[in-house]
Amino acid sequence: MAFPAPLQRLIQALEKFPGVGARSAERMALHVLRSPAEDAAELALALRDARMETLRCAVCGNITLRTPCAICEDEDRNRTLVCVVEGPREVESMESAGVFTGLYHVLMDGFAPREGAEPEPDALDALRKRVEQDGVLEVVLATAPDREGEGAGLLVAEALEGLDVNLTRLARGVPVGTRLEYLHGEILADAFRGRSAMPAPSSSR
Amino acid sequence: MAFPAPLQRLIQALEKFPGVGARSAERMALHVLRSPAEDAAELALALRDARMETLRCAVCGNITLRTPCAICEDEDRNRTLVCVVEGPREVESMESAGVFTGLYHVLMDGFAPREGAEPEPDALDALRKRVEQDGVLEVVLATAPDREGEGAGLLVAEALEGLDVNLTRLARGVPVGTRLEYLHGEILADAFRGRSAMPAPSSSR
Repeated sequence: MAFPAPLQRLIQALEKFPGVGARSAERMALHVLRSPAEDAAELALALRDARMETLRCAVCGNITLRTPCAICEDEDRNRTLVCVVEGPREVESMESAGVFTGLYHVLMDGFAPREGAEPEPDALDALRKRVEQDGVLEVVLATAPDREGEGAGLLVAEALEGLDVNLTRLARGVPVGTRLEYLHGEILADAFRGRSAMPAPSSSR
Repeated sequence: MAFPAPLQRLIQALEKFPGVGARSAERMALHVLRSPAEDAAELALALRDARMETLRCAVCGNITLRTPCAICEDEDRNRTLVCVVEGPREVESMESAGVFTGLYHVLMDGFAPREGAEPEPDALDALRKRVEQDGVLEVVLATAPDREGEGAGLLVAEALEGLDVNLTRLARGVPVGTRLEYLHGEILADAFRGRSAMPAPSSSR
């Protein structure tokens, strides 16, 4: 005799999440049983709404309620500059930090795991088309500084071959706020390779 | 600009699961968006059904569709023997293994985390009442062999104080199928303390 059927069914549905094994799914399901019924109802509603109401922007590939998305339609942004990211979460991080005012191009749908994940061929074609047709002057690669990210970057470079566009990538170096003693040798090597002249002391100081 | 509102809402609902942080909830939510709509609908339904259709057995505390549960009502089981477990998952493991034919008593609702979790006072009172009224001859403690489990065992022993019942606990020792070199010293100490006479070779051999 196993768990009651409805509980078993919930466990099976939860196990479909990436990274959620049998034991985690059991714990999650038992949590649902002891939580207020409104919590389960809210999660059920949120699941359907998120699944039914969101789509991917036909221009940049980001997740949105309508296409083109608000970022792609924002005339105040720098439309000659496109930042290529791996997934929607990277867009969210950059927008939250408020450090970039150009447009984005999203290579993948951003679900885990990313091991072995490659840019969607459609996303690469769409990027080439944007550069050809939309007056893009610079494409900044902001894929992760690891094997998947480097691989994605190479595919982007290939996709843009022959086009008159500046292809750049985010600076690599020492991350602000860390202590050097804890940093990986490759980070330090990047930082040495990319070293720059010390800024002159500001005269207003 | 963050994620679209329905996605944000789904992330927040998923974050309520124990052990699911902001990043995991994002990954899970993005997984929902890329999965078939039927999967999201099935999970939504399963959530409500599991929450609405299950309850805890008024006798043993296990999760069930009706009370008393099928195990408590099964007249073929040994009704003089009650195994005390921490949660519904332990009942499920034991029933799957088919190693116990008595009745159960469930001390907690079994959601994670169990750190610091204590038996529900109602569960202890109910156990005492079962022993007093239902002809229980032996209570086997099957709480986990760790701090929480030992603590729960002490509370059970206190709750049964003064009653004429045999209180036993699961044997401790070397788990079958492992190699001794990998075992913790405390496991070996338990195994030495509990050593028993070698069974005589079977004459039929």
